[in-house]
Amino acid sequence: MNVFNAIKRHSEKAGLPPGSIVYTERKKLENPIFRIMDYDKKTIIEKKLTKIEEAFPFKESKRVTWLDITGLHESNVIGRIGEVFELHPLIQEDIVSTGKRPSFADFNSYLFIVLKMLNFDSRTGEIASEHVSLIVGKDYIISFQESDSAAFDSVRERIRDAKWTVRKSGSDYLAYVLIDAIIDNYFKVLEKLGDKMGDLEEELDDNPTQDTLTSINDLKRELIFLRKSIWPLRELINKMQKSESRIIKKQTKVYLSDLYDHVIQAMDTVESFRDLAGSMLDVYMSSVSNRLNEIMKVLTILSTIFIPLTFVSGIYGMNFEFMPEIHWKYGYLFVWGVFIAMALVMIYYFKKKEWI
Amino acid sequence: MNVFNAIKRHSEKAGLPPGSIVYTERKKLENPIFRIMDYDKKTIIEKKLTKIEEAFPFKESKRVTWLDITGLHESNVIGRIGEVFELHPLIQEDIVSTGKRPSFADFNSYLFIVLKMLNFDSRTGEIASEHVSLIVGKDYIISFQESDSAAFDSVRERIRDAKWTVRKSGSDYLAYVLIDAIIDNYFKVLEKLGDKMGDLEEELDDNPTQDTLTSINDLKRELIFLRKSIWPLRELINKMQKSESRIIKKQTKVYLSDLYDHVIQAMDTVESFRDLAGSMLDVYMSSVSNRLNEIMKVLTILSTIFIPLTFVSGIYGMNFEFMPEIHWKYGYLFVWGVFIAMALVMIYYFKKKEWI
Amino acid sequence: MNVFNAIKRHSEKAGLPPGSIVYTERKKLENPIFRIMDYDKKTIIEKKLTKIEEAFPFKESKRVTWLDITGLHESNVIGRIGEVFELHPLIQEDIVSTGKRPSFADFNSYLFIVLKMLNFDSRTGEIASEHVSLIVGKDYIISFQESDSAAFDSVRERIRDAKWTVRKSGSDYLAYVLIDAIIDNYFKVLEKLGDKMGDLEEELDDNPTQDTLTSINDLKRELIFLRKSIWPLRELINKMQKSESRIIKKQTKVYLSDLYDHVIQAMDTVESFRDLAGSMLDVYMSSVSNRLNEIMKVLTILSTIFIPLTFVSGIYGMNFEFMPEIHWKYGYLFVWGVFIAMALVMIYYFKKKEWI
Amino acid sequence: MNVFNAIKRHSEKAGLPPGSIVYTERKKLENPIFRIMDYDKKTIIEKKLTKIEEAFPFKESKRVTWLDITGLHESNVIGRIGEVFELHPLIQEDIVSTGKRPSFADFNSYLFIVLKMLNFDSRTGEIASEHVSLIVGKDYIISFQESDSAAFDSVRERIRDAKWTVRKSGSDYLAYVLIDAIIDNYFKVLEKLGDKMGDLEEELDDNPTQDTLTSINDLKRELIFLRKSIWPLRELINKMQKSESRIIKKQTKVYLSDLYDHVIQAMDTVESFRDLAGSMLDVYMSSVSNRLNEIMKVLTILSTIFIPLTFVSGIYGMNFEFMPEIHWKYGYLFVWGVFIAMALVMIYYFKKKEWI
Amino acid sequence: MNVFNAIKRHSEKAGLPPGSIVYTERKKLENPIFRIMDYDKKTIIEKKLTKIEEAFPFKESKRVTWLDITGLHESNVIGRIGEVFELHPLIQEDIVSTGKRPSFADFNSYLFIVLKMLNFDSRTGEIASEHVSLIVGKDYIISFQESDSAAFDSVRERIRDAKWTVRKSGSDYLAYVLIDAIIDNYFKVLEKLGDKMGDLEEELDDNPTQDTLTSINDLKRELIFLRKSIWPLRELINKMQKSESRIIKKQTKVYLSDLYDHVIQAMDTVESFRDLAGSMLDVYMSSVSNRLNEIMKVLTILSTIFIPLTFVSGIYGMNFEFMPEIHWKYGYLFVWGVFIAMALVMIYYFKKKEWI
Repeated sequence: MNVFNAIKRHSEKAGLPPGSIVYTERKKLENPIFRIMDYDKKTIIEKKLTKIEEAFPFKESKRVTWLDITGLHESNVIGRIGEVFELHPLIQEDIVSTGKRPSFADFNSYLFIVLKMLNFDSRTGEIASEHVSLIVGKDYIISFQESDSAAFDSVRERIRDAKWTVRKSGSDYLAYVLIDAIIDNYFKVLEKLGDKMGDLEEELDDNPTQDTLTSINDLKRELIFLRKSIWPLRELINKMQKSESRIIKKQTKVYLSDLYDHVIQAMDTVESFRDLAGSMLDVYMSSVSNRLNEIMKVLTILSTIFIPLTFVSGIYGMNFEFMPEIHWKYGYLFVWGVFIAMALVMIYYFKKKEWI
Repeated sequence: MNVFNAIKRHSEKAGLPPGSIVYTERKKLENPIFRIMDYDKKTIIEKKLTKIEEAFPFKESKRVTWLDITGLHESNVIGRIGEVFELHPLIQEDIVSTGKRPSFADFNSYLFIVLKMLNFDSRTGEIASEHVSLIVGKDYIISFQESDSAAFDSVRERIRDAKWTVRKSGSDYLAYVLIDAIIDNYFKVLEKLGDKMGDLEEELDDNPTQDTLTSINDLKRELIFLRKSIWPLRELINKMQKSESRIIKKQTKVYLSDLYDHVIQAMDTVESFRDLAGSMLDVYMSSVSNRLNEIMKVLTILSTIFIPLTFVSGIYGMNFEFMPEIHWKYGYLFVWGVFIAMALVMIYYFKKKEWI
Repeated sequence: MNVFNAIKRHSEKAGLPPGSIVYTERKKLENPIFRIMDYDKKTIIEKKLTKIEEAFPFKESKRVTWLDITGLHESNVIGRIGEVFELHPLIQEDIVSTGKRPSFADFNSYLFIVLKMLNFDSRTGEIASEHVSLIVGKDYIISFQESDSAAFDSVRERIRDAKWTVRKSGSDYLAYVLIDAIIDNYFKVLEKLGDKMGDLEEELDDNPTQDTLTSINDLKRELIFLRKSIWPLRELINKMQKSESRIIKKQTKVYLSDLYDHVIQAMDTVESFRDLAGSMLDVYMSSVSNRLNEIMKVLTILSTIFIPLTFVSGIYGMNFEFMPEIHWKYGYLFVWGVFIAMALVMIYYFKKKEWI
Repeated sequence: MNVFNAIKRHSEKAGLPPGSIVYTERKKLENPIFRIMDYDKKTIIEKKLTKIEEAFPFKESKRVTWLDITGLHESNVIGRIGEVFELHPLIQEDIVSTGKRPSFADFNSYLFIVLKMLNFDSRTGEIASEHVSLIVGKDYIISFQESDSAAFDSVRERIRDAKWTVRKSGSDYLAYVLIDAIIDNYFKVLEKLGDKMGDLEEELDDNPTQDTLTSINDLKRELIFLRKSIWPLRELINKMQKSESRIIKKQTKVYLSDLYDHVIQAMDTVESFRDLAGSMLDVYMSSVSNRLNEIMKVLTILSTIFIPLTFVSGIYGMNFEFMPEIHWKYGYLFVWGVFIAMALVMIYYFKKKEWI
Repeated sequence: MNVFNAIKRHSEKAGLPPGSIVYTERKKLENPIFRIMDYDKKTIIEKKLTKIEEAFPFKESKRVTWLDITGLHESNVIGRIGEVFELHPLIQEDIVSTGKRPSFADFNSYLFIVLKMLNFDSRTGEIASEHVSLIVGKDYIISFQESDSAAFDSVRERIRDAKWTVRKSGSDYLAYVLIDAIIDNYFKVLEKLGDKMGDLEEELDDNPTQDTLTSINDLKRELIFLRKSIWPLRELINKMQKSESRIIKKQTKVYLSDLYDHVIQAMDTVESFRDLAGSMLDVYMSSVSNRLNEIMKVLTILSTIFIPLTFVSGIYGMNFEFMPEIHWKYGYLFVWGVFIAMALVMIYYFKKKEWI
């Protein structure tokens, strides 16, 4: 489970000096992939690089440069970038620390943003979380991801077409677009969770089992996890908005405020889902109690009908010498009358109580 | 359900560039309706337009102009207005984003307000939410609604009559009147919910079933939804009050503070309702337990009376050769005496325990 | 119930223009009563007026004038006062809006204070809430109440006697004394609720029934209601303390800070009561479970003793030809020995389990 | 109980003018006791006075004077002190208002501090609360207590010995020492509560009864009470620290910050205890459910073993003419075999289910 | 348990004057150990001292000096250091007050930091807490620990190697490294707790017993304890970051902000664990209820099958003279048919109800 892993990853690093670049996850692809886009209003260069060194000349370009690095397991790549772009050692550590929370830091000549990209893994039915970092300089962005995800594809598509605002804007707008793409994915995950909740509600109505409880608790756990991922975003974007960094231009702040609204909306939904999951638990618990009542009713109805009848039959099974009814001609029939009368009285009683 | 839909709507837009005007709801009427009111203290012009272009000349009018647009599905209408009134692309997107939360933004030359209009749909017994946006300029207001609702009719009525304050005031007072009309509707919805709660309480007293629980949970869900709609209003109106925009005049702020009070009152009521719904759940759970006790009491009383009697009858059903009681003349009568005595003792015991 | 009514009252007014004077309560007395007290250190005039117009000359008096109006159903009275004292239309509306929350507003030439007077109606056993408004001018106070309550009598008594501080002070001190009288009443209501809780606790110890649960929930509801009435007072008095109005003199602020302490104390008590009511619910739920255990114990003890005995008696009721025990001379006695031995073993077993 | 009494005390005073000195508690000692300590670095005077007037000459002393008054029921004593030391009427009221919350007020020429002294009354097993007020002037302290408690004895001891800091410091340090003595007592009370909780946990493990639940709830109630007493202290000491009064010297503030830490620590403990009490409730509830399961298991095991056996014996108790088994020579033995076989199967089944 | 002990320790000191150096714990090692490291970029001196006096000459060293003292039970050692380094008496008290919360205080010429070192004692399976204090001067650090823990070993290792930043930095960076080492240990403890939770979850799935509940509650208790230890760290590091002390250099603040993130991450995990423990409780409670249902089902199924059968067999056990069926040739077979038919009907009924 996600929570436990994040701690394990952290505790494995205990004792190492700060600034150590240690990627504790299982590596998700063979070789890191480097993609570069270098564009302004009119021209655009797009390349897939094989060596990180090929990216460094673009540092001098006056156009907006986006260097996208997929795969964090080769610490020397991170180290090389750190050297060339003069990144603080702690940043180099944070880029690969998958346990690190979403955060925003202003290092004057660049901004450092850590995010979580969430995806619903339809195979396992679980939410997969990926560690994404952005370094936003005056005219470049370096993005680091763990594995090749589709979320940034739509951004690339938009950059290629000169008609979109992104081509006419600077690195700060590109940063906004990338964060927006990540947050949009959260809504997809929330939609999947919503579908799950719908299924669970039907299950609760039809035939809740102990498995249903397990599913409700899994859901609650996923919501706890989502909450942990989304909550810090609020502060992150708030800090970006209030930042006095010259990298973030005034006209971009309107977009950030829109982003802020999206995050609040996602948070609201998570909170609502948590409330709903709580109600589901109540319904489950009550259905368990109701089933017990149901069972006890069956037992009680049957017992109360037959126990007195059995007693009556027991009476006439006694071997007393002097038992007048035994010798009556219609004694047996009479007893049957008693049986039927008693049963009817009981049934009438239960009907009146609305038990049957 | 509302919560799930809002997310779905949002996630459908994932991947689109910001500023895209996409209305993801099922359209609620064939053609958009345009209503214009242009008034000052003395004169008033009221018209129903067929084309949005007919509204643009009023832009130059020195009087207060209210352009009310019903129906958000034609994106080119929104686009045209955006052009003429120089609206920010994000606003044009938000006007049709029905998932957007209530918010207030100051764009210097105009204010942008997003609200939710709530109505109790008496047919489905559910709360229907509509997305309403207001653009408040120095001497005009443009309002956008999804479908034709009665809430603004009373406002129109009041504008037509020159005696009311609205005719003597500017666009900011009109904005207040429109928001007030929307918030007044919340109280109608709350009243309906209050009626529902009253019914549920009676049901709980009389004969609670698993359906009662479902109703309580539906109620809780509606309260969660209401809360999500009303809560952001507090901040919205607070921001309006503290806004330094020259559009909102000082004498209008007293009215806004009154509005703020109404919102707090609505919030208070929602919170009280949530507390009450919580108590209902307790009562329901306890009534289920009580019913189990009731059932078990019946079973226990009957069993404890008849099981010993049956045992006694069993004794005299044994076939031992040497059983003196069998041969007594009044053995059978004696056993009946034993039966009756045992039953009375048991009944006395239960009476003392106050079980019967 | 209070909560539901307050909403209904509000929703009845939906659609009316702001400033409409509409009293939506059932009127509580035939004609409004006007009482005037006009005093300074040395002299005092006290009168009961029949027409509101008789009060207006006192407006010019240099002494402190207290105009107390009981009965809010005649809107023209409120209107007339509004005209003469130049009150804002919204104030005139709020004086009769019984759903309005406690609040404080500074209108420069006067302060407007809305409060709730609470009384424990010993006839119905419920808390009755009354809407009270105060208009505090430089040298006058106008108070509005719904019905004739005893709370202000002690204040009048004190004004009549020249030895008290109130005679030596201005309108702000009188305002303090009136609010203090209202808050003192809250403690009486809390004391009554405390008595109720004491009774409920005894009931819980002795013999809790489903009615006890209903009472606990009624109590919780009353506490929710109290909370809603007291909570806004905190802010109200806080605002008064921090107000820079020249009407509130510096030496009065010490008294306001004392008042603030009283409100906090009342809030504390309400919160403690809520916690206690929560514990009561736990005790009730647990007593229901305990009773079930009790019932099941009786059933189990009896069944486990008699079911095996019945089986034994059944054995010797079988009609096999070859059953040696049947023919033993002391077979029957032996079986009785078995019966008694089995019963004793069972009883010993239950004793050891501490069930009996 | 404490909470209820505090309200009763307050509501008894409703209707009295502010500043009335009314002690509503049962008086705890016959005559008030006056103790005076007047000291500087070198000399010390310690006296037990019989009349309050004897204390007034010390007012002129340049040394630190501590006047300790035990017993609050003689209002004229408080009145006399009020006159001589020029205390605000509200202070005189608060000194005897045992319902007043802990608070701090700066009256320029003196500080007024209200505290609660807590003691665990080992006789009743309950927490006793006492109302303590301190008036801290430039070179004097007047302390008011309800009854003679040991908490201040250690302070007196320390003053008598010239080696301690208190002899070298002013009235502000003495105030710190007195408050410290009171807060130290809180930890003693908490320790006693901790012991109680330990006992309760053992009881829960061994044999929880309905009494255990009552004890848990009493504990929760005491924690609510403690919380109410300690929580305002946080603010009180915070205000003292930030106070700009010239009475509190800079070097004393370090000690106040230490005091603040102690209060937080006490609060933390109360909160932890509340959490623990909550867990205890869970354990209790679960143990009730477990016991029910236990009972039902016994019933079910016994019933399921003997009911089928009884049926079999019933079969061979039937009187059919044609029943071959009856006439078999080993029929009876065979039936015993059936009995034993059935019982073993059942026992095996329950073993497999791990019920026995 | 930890919570109870901390209070006991505090209450033992009640009545002592502030500044008393009293170590209330059982001493954990025979003699205090003194370790000194004195280093700059190039040289390093490392020594284990036998007397504290040997450390004092290093006070004059211009290099960074780290004096590490293990064992707090000899109050004269603390006293001597206090004298030489001119520590405030309250600090000397706090160094040995193991009940003291984590805190940060700026005494101008040095900073005083109190921390808790947590270790998972694998022998007892409990979390052991140790009291650690740091005195951070311009070019020295004195650290106090209760017993010899491994956490600082990695720091020493790093100091010995000249390549690490710590050798090139001042005492503030060393302070950061020490705190970092302590916080890293928290993650180890959290990992252990995570493992425990994993085990508990499996236990819950397999076969939850009353012991499982005890374990869940122990876990909750440990989380409460952890929370109490970690929560104040947030404020501590925040205060360090905002401190204007000249001891903390600007370039170190980036590292503190990284530390802050770690603390938040630890807090997040504790909160998630608390939520998870809450879910576990729900699962436990529900599994108890489910087991009851299971038991009752067995009882009900068996009873409802055999009770009617027994009744039928009872009928033919009656001794009526006139009972035609008795004399039928196939009467007995017919009754067996009835038995089987009834049983099949019942079984079919239960199958349909999905009980079997």
